[in-house]
Amino acid sequence: MSLRNTLEFLLYDWLDAPALIERPRFAEHSRETFDAVMDTCERIARDKYAPFNRLIDSEEPRTEQQPDGNLHVVLPQATYDARIAYAESGMLAAAQNYEHGGMQLPYLVEAAANAFFGKASISIGANLLTVGNANLLMAYGTPSQKNVFAANEFNGRWTGTMCLSEPQAGSSLSDVATRAELEEQGDPLGPRYRLRGNKMWISGGEHELAENIVHLVLAKIPGPDGKLIPGVKGISLFVVPKKLVDTQGQLTGVRNDVALAGLNHKLGWRGTTNTLLNFGEGKFPVDGKAGAVGYLVGQPGEGLKCMFHMMNEARIAIGMAATMLGLAGYEASLEYARTRTQGRPVGAGGKDASQAPVRLIEHADIKRMLLTQKAYCDGALALLLYCARLVDEQHTGASGAADEARLLLEVLTPIAKSWPSENCLEANSLAIQIHGGYGYTRDFPVEQYWRDNRLNMIHEGTHGIQAMDLLGRKVLMEGGRGLKLLAARINDTIEKALQQPELAVYANALAQALARVGAATKTAWATGQPAEALANAVPYMQAFGHMVLAWVWLDLAHTASSGDASANEASQACIPAMSFFYRYELPKIDAWLRVVESRDMTCAEMPEHLF
Amino acid sequence: MSLRNTLEFLLYDWLDAPALIERPRFAEHSRETFDAVMDTCERIARDKYAPFNRLIDSEEPRTEQQPDGNLHVVLPQATYDARIAYAESGMLAAAQNYEHGGMQLPYLVEAAANAFFGKASISIGANLLTVGNANLLMAYGTPSQKNVFAANEFNGRWTGTMCLSEPQAGSSLSDVATRAELEEQGDPLGPRYRLRGNKMWISGGEHELAENIVHLVLAKIPGPDGKLIPGVKGISLFVVPKKLVDTQGQLTGVRNDVALAGLNHKLGWRGTTNTLLNFGEGKFPVDGKAGAVGYLVGQPGEGLKCMFHMMNEARIAIGMAATMLGLAGYEASLEYARTRTQGRPVGAGGKDASQAPVRLIEHADIKRMLLTQKAYCDGALALLLYCARLVDEQHTGASGAADEARLLLEVLTPIAKSWPSENCLEANSLAIQIHGGYGYTRDFPVEQYWRDNRLNMIHEGTHGIQAMDLLGRKVLMEGGRGLKLLAARINDTIEKALQQPELAVYANALAQALARVGAATKTAWATGQPAEALANAVPYMQAFGHMVLAWVWLDLAHTASSGDASANEASQACIPAMSFFYRYELPKIDAWLRVVESRDMTCAEMPEHLF
Repeated sequence: MSLRNTLEFLLYDWLDAPALIERPRFAEHSRETFDAVMDTCERIARDKYAPFNRLIDSEEPRTEQQPDGNLHVVLPQATYDARIAYAESGMLAAAQNYEHGGMQLPYLVEAAANAFFGKASISIGANLLTVGNANLLMAYGTPSQKNVFAANEFNGRWTGTMCLSEPQAGSSLSDVATRAELEEQGDPLGPRYRLRGNKMWISGGEHELAENIVHLVLAKIPGPDGKLIPGVKGISLFVVPKKLVDTQGQLTGVRNDVALAGLNHKLGWRGTTNTLLNFGEGKFPVDGKAGAVGYLVGQPGEGLKCMFHMMNEARIAIGMAATMLGLAGYEASLEYARTRTQGRPVGAGGKDASQAPVRLIEHADIKRMLLTQKAYCDGALALLLYCARLVDEQHTGASGAADEARLLLEVLTPIAKSWPSENCLEANSLAIQIHGGYGYTRDFPVEQYWRDNRLNMIHEGTHGIQAMDLLGRKVLMEGGRGLKLLAARINDTIEKALQQPELAVYANALAQALARVGAATKTAWATGQPAEALANAVPYMQAFGHMVLAWVWLDLAHTASSGDASANEASQACIPAMSFFYRYELPKIDAWLRVVESRDMTCAEMPEHLF
Repeated sequence: MSLRNTLEFLLYDWLDAPALIERPRFAEHSRETFDAVMDTCERIARDKYAPFNRLIDSEEPRTEQQPDGNLHVVLPQATYDARIAYAESGMLAAAQNYEHGGMQLPYLVEAAANAFFGKASISIGANLLTVGNANLLMAYGTPSQKNVFAANEFNGRWTGTMCLSEPQAGSSLSDVATRAELEEQGDPLGPRYRLRGNKMWISGGEHELAENIVHLVLAKIPGPDGKLIPGVKGISLFVVPKKLVDTQGQLTGVRNDVALAGLNHKLGWRGTTNTLLNFGEGKFPVDGKAGAVGYLVGQPGEGLKCMFHMMNEARIAIGMAATMLGLAGYEASLEYARTRTQGRPVGAGGKDASQAPVRLIEHADIKRMLLTQKAYCDGALALLLYCARLVDEQHTGASGAADEARLLLEVLTPIAKSWPSENCLEANSLAIQIHGGYGYTRDFPVEQYWRDNRLNMIHEGTHGIQAMDLLGRKVLMEGGRGLKLLAARINDTIEKALQQPELAVYANALAQALARVGAATKTAWATGQPAEALANAVPYMQAFGHMVLAWVWLDLAHTASSGDASANEASQACIPAMSFFYRYELPKIDAWLRVVESRDMTCAEMPEHLF
């Protein structure tokens, strides 16, 4: 089954993408325009991404010292070519207004079309952050910041980064130590500051793929006593270009004081540079002074709120990345299993060596590993497109529906990020396993998918942080309304499925799982002690995720088995894949929830000297 | 806690290694001699292995074309130095008789001492196969094969390989196509054949670490009609030296017709060359003729039986390799968690950013990830040493006990191989996770451990093959007597534990798990159809493995909590680690067993066109 078939089933049969056309923003679109965008992306991904995925892994980014003493990042030509092809496709601005050069494409279709690139080569270039960066500026920037910075990211001239982490602080943003001191309140690009500090793990932080790089940087403005305010409340957001620009978006010829300190040498995801950047150390003084020039975005002290606009988008994108790596491995291992002959099936009398060997796909355990991958990856893809559809609802729905979509996204985002990161990584491991020894060699692509995918449980908020966000914040926020909204949608699916006799048993299992997760949520918080509730936040998230995926699969199966679904293979495959998920996967939630329900403190109370 | 502490607890408190000294074979040993061997291995591993583990990964084996057209394998100097130090330690012959230059060391102590090398650098050199190869020859070889080949492997002059797989056949040994034709029945080194065929995945297949390489090769002797006999019954075993030797073990100066066709470029485990070898293609003709000279070992047609002697040993060694990689990651992540400060613990009112950041190990989720690693890796180590102790019982116990040990080993070997391969790989992933972004870089060792460990579910019989072996053969053999013996030992532990009030709840949980696994075994086979029974062999093995590990942990906890255990930290840590395993892990068996009990055919019956 091709990804295109799956996407068409999800968009047109399941999520009713054509209904979006009735909204004014999307009125000039049609299924034909949606398909045309997917055609273009599928073609560019096939021609400019997929053939170079191994190359960008084996020729990872490196630095060369230039005659002037600066570090130059060396990337393969294929990375330049892929970036140009992507920018020329218009996908950077796909969701933007027509007057800004955009296509006013629904986010749902944008996400679906971008899936082709993720599967072809997840790490070539770093377009994801450029769009997220520009979107943030569109939401919080001044008109000149939008016109100068965002516009030139959408049109492909410049790229963007997000600079949150620091070497000493990692996930702990309250410990951000980068300092921003006011230089000129009245600069036309926004209040102008000078920044000093180090930022770690900056993807796309230095390269020459584009004319300029737009850094969005979290930093603290000192109080009147000159000290930084502890905690996240003191954090503000700044736009810091690598090269200074004027209000017309032209380079002034002055290099900003942002210097590459080094590249991180990674396990995978090597098509994207990952950097340590020094801001304001004086390597490139501006007007004779050390300090990186940055312009305040939004209000002082609201930097994290602004950044979360970008982070939520990035988290869904990470889930999609994990999913597409999973699907890439699935396709590779399916192809291998269909062509490689080995061994014989077990018959009533054992194996008969006098018969010809069969293809791998004829062995039950190979099929188990294929169906596991399929259930994980197609299920994750469906969840992520469901979330993308909620984004469209949030932006273009009626006010009640938009607010509901916003809150559902709050609850689902930790799952959309964490579930594929964990389970599609496992899918990649199964893809290796199907290949046997060959899967452990670099002659086949699956080992790279597995290495690339290992990043996704770490960046944009680790697994542990997603779990704390889910159980510590999202299921509680607004009096638990987000969780109630999700439960209502799940109950809708249960009700629909109960109408179909062949789905009733699954509907009942889902109802039980929903009740169990709801009860565990309450029990976890029964003592009101965060230390007790959150001690098992990760097992809670694992169970919650499996329950959500079970819901997605039942809803897909309902669509597939109701008369209005097209009879393609993506649709027919829903019933066995759903059935697999309920038989092999959903029962796992019991073990995860036991420790949540009992507020098990075995781990939290382990004395350090006994480790 | 150091590995040494853990080993001492397991050897001396749990497995009563000193009792072995009462046996005639080990009479000259004492706890002091055991400790001295461990001292030596710990020191060599620290000095000659650990410092070079990253080097042998980044400088993987490569070939250079020699002036004579032959391929020469280039390895770092460190690999030569490590091999020399290991050979000089006498560990290659540790278990051999004194008159053969051995130490008559119990296998239990040999396995424990070798653990240090596995943790320091799993892939530098390939001593494991050399010892296994020589052991096989000691069991099945002629006196001259023992004196010439085995003796020179034990003394470190030569290395050994096992050559089973072929490029077209992988795990399917019945499809071995290498052909062996008789040349001289009366050769003093054994009936002399000429071999022709290709062998894939041969670890240590070509290098110049030693004077010669002793290949043990599976091949088929054609029948009178010149055709190869289908199936495994036609397979015979041959010893095929890289360079021909005389009956005194001296090189004759004639190169055998075994040629390196290429190196496999692997995801990890890069300290060991892995090769494709061409036997008998005529690159190095012997006496003017193509064909690799090989000497029959054992009887014609019994090659697989002989090879299994080596494979069973190799499978336990693979389990140990997986375990030591897991422990290496555990130690690295524990050290990191103890030193790296980041974030603040969740208090009653949330987090207080005005307080200083705490060390990672003070976060509950970090402790969860550490305790998971510890429970997996220490538990696996205990199981493997338990198996090693059974090997000693098999070789030196009274006849009834020896036979019981043999059969228990049959049942436990698939678990000893598969359980650490799967779970200690997961431990390595948690070690990466604890490091956050740093864990994804090559600046820390954990990503390499994870890559190295991924091999262990594949080589020496894949996960799927271990599962078929367990459910399709081992639990059924000799009328199910092996499973009954294991159940009896588990019941002994349950009985002991029930005597201690604080262990009773765990004893009951183990009793339930044992009953459940026993019932699932019966239900799986209720229809007598292998295709139905084995469709879910892997989930069965996962559940069986967790039940076995729960048994091991309860037995360890019983030892730790009874008065006679020394009061070291390894002992004290048993109770919380056991408690973790029963609360977080053992409940997982329910989900795995459900599909076994219901003989679920969802995967097996998935139509191919719907994948």
